Amino acid sequence: MSDPSKYALNSKEVANATEEWLLKRGVQKRQIAELVMLLQQQYFPSLTIEECEQNVDAVLSKREVQNAVLTGIQLDLLAAEGKLLPPLQAMIEHDEGLYGCDEVLALSIVNVYGSIGFTNFGYIDKLKPGILQKLNDKKDGEIHTFLDDIVGAIAASASSRIAHRKQAEREQNTDLPLD
Amino acid sequence: MSDPSKYALNSKEVANATEEWLLKRGVQKRQIAELVMLLQQQYFPSLTIEECEQNVDAVLSKREVQNAVLTGIQLDLLAAEGKLLPPLQAMIEHDEGLYGCDEVLALSIVNVYGSIGFTNFGYIDKLKPGILQKLNDKKDGEIHTFLDDIVGAIAASASSRIAHRKQAEREQNTDLPLD
Amino acid sequence: MSDPSKYALNSKEVANATEEWLLKRGVQKRQIAELVMLLQQQYFPSLTIEECEQNVDAVLSKREVQNAVLTGIQLDLLAAEGKLLPPLQAMIEHDEGLYGCDEVLALSIVNVYGSIGFTNFGYIDKLKPGILQKLNDKKDGEIHTFLDDIVGAIAASASSRIAHRKQAEREQNTDLPLD
Amino acid sequence: MSDPSKYALNSKEVANATEEWLLKRGVQKRQIAELVMLLQQQYFPSLTIEECEQNVDAVLSKREVQNAVLTGIQLDLLAAEGKLLPPLQAMIEHDEGLYGCDEVLALSIVNVYGSIGFTNFGYIDKLKPGILQKLNDKKDGEIHTFLDDIVGAIAASASSRIAHRKQAEREQNTDLPLD
Repeated sequence: MSDPSKYALNSKEVANATEEWLLKRGVQKRQIAELVMLLQQQYFPSLTIEECEQNVDAVLSKREVQNAVLTGIQLDLLAAEGKLLPPLQAMIEHDEGLYGCDEVLALSIVNVYGSIGFTNFGYIDKLKPGILQKLNDKKDGEIHTFLDDIVGAIAASASSRIAHRKQAEREQNTDLPLD
Repeated sequence: MSDPSKYALNSKEVANATEEWLLKRGVQKRQIAELVMLLQQQYFPSLTIEECEQNVDAVLSKREVQNAVLTGIQLDLLAAEGKLLPPLQAMIEHDEGLYGCDEVLALSIVNVYGSIGFTNFGYIDKLKPGILQKLNDKKDGEIHTFLDDIVGAIAASASSRIAHRKQAEREQNTDLPLD
Repeated sequence: MSDPSKYALNSKEVANATEEWLLKRGVQKRQIAELVMLLQQQYFPSLTIEECEQNVDAVLSKREVQNAVLTGIQLDLLAAEGKLLPPLQAMIEHDEGLYGCDEVLALSIVNVYGSIGFTNFGYIDKLKPGILQKLNDKKDGEIHTFLDDIVGAIAASASSRIAHRKQAEREQNTDLPLD
Repeated sequence: MSDPSKYALNSKEVANATEEWLLKRGVQKRQIAELVMLLQQQYFPSLTIEECEQNVDAVLSKREVQNAVLTGIQLDLLAAEGKLLPPLQAMIEHDEGLYGCDEVLALSIVNVYGSIGFTNFGYIDKLKPGILQKLNDKKDGEIHTFLDDIVGAIAASASSRIAHRKQAEREQNTDLPLD
């Protein structure tokens, strides 16, 4: 172990590792933005994919989110290498339905932008559109038990952030008093 | 206020009030069981509607669930009577998208049977099948801002309970050692 | 009920009502800041009470927090007036230990600044220092079943926010590369 | 990776591994029971340590709890071996205050017995009595970043379970109608 007296949290390093590991695991921010678009375009028809991606960036800048992303990817990686304790190895490797720590970490991401994101998280976690389908396709031999829930949670959080922002814009742009 | 020295929690009364108020607000246990069937029959083809209803009963026997049901229905009732503080009145009456206390109470129901229920909750909360559609139909003048989320959460919890039970049955009924 | 076609969320009104109702219920922001100081001064000896209050303000500017504050105060008010359904009336009036919807709403406040606040919330909710003691003192005939948990949650959230900010300051002020 | 067609969840193995790994990491059930006693004896003076331990056993029989225990111990073990991705390695090794996935997993344990356990969890997580102090003493070179939160959460859950059970006993043992 390293010398505790020399430890200091390096936030930039945590943020960078989050971005890098998402990419290494096959997830581009644009693909998460596409999930956001799918969830939000019915409510905001003028929403652009660039705007969705900016909101994904904002979600990814939160340390609580970075911690969950890194921890989840770490467990996926170790499962792929067969390095976990036997019952945990089997449960994560096979995305066991009764193992819910992946959902637990995902919900910690959703919570950062509030409870209005729960519904969107559950919806895309069930339907698995776009990148989520690719992450769930176990044919390529990769394990993404945690990552697929985490990506869905980032998209749900970005959707909540957009809903809050759009409301603020709407209220600023109106001359009429709101009742 | 009543005399604090005479107060004693009456659990039977809390349980009974939960059942009665669900009915008064137009929700039959069979209708919640139908949501459970919708969520679980693909995984357990032999599942019966009676079994689903027994699991709904088990969820409703939990005090944490009863507390959330009564609190949510209470807020719906007061909103319908126009008796809430102005901004809360407007938000609950119009099921404001940025008001998330209904999802917060619903999640406290889902949590009792664990994180594996989050996905099912979000999914039916978005799709609004069966009784959820009826509760969301604002044409009848009733307010069910809390109740629709709560009913979805009860169905998601009952689904989680079934998943746990079916696994236990499967392991008891096999002669072969599981590896 | 009002005309749904005329409804528009007025965020300013929600924010203002939150501030007003905290004051009406006997809670000054400075008193919440004092809880924050109690929780954080051992880690940041130069922390000022003004800084604590600024962080309380930041927490109170979040809509998720405003929703929980208003909903909790509303239920306390109605309990004091004896206007709740009988079993809910008794449980909230007597701050029943097995009724946990107050903790549920409080946790939705803590979650906005992440899981590191859970510990601080539990700690002051148990010890009830300062304003929390006053809110818990049932001798004045007021009911604060929800409000005491909510005030503790705001203090815990502001503490988490300070922990994040102080780390950012520390990293900006160092010339040495962090390892 | 193993053959997916041969995978079947072995619940007994998951339960056994949970018990074994708690012991291997230096945590006896009696020590968790002592935390429970500390939290509950003021409310139930006749509570015995055996009763506390039975409630710890009941909490540990829940799969959601087993999943969190195994996942947390796994991450502690890998951190001790220096096998995690660099920023995660540093954060878990040094029990970084801004890393909250340990609290997130712990809360998933508390949630199983409902929100009334949040306060007890936070309280002992801050005070670190008994076994929690030993787990936090970093002098022995062991890493228990996850385990100390998890043990606190098990104790808080067992306390909630006792509170529910004692109420049920009280209501059964009275001849007088409760009002």
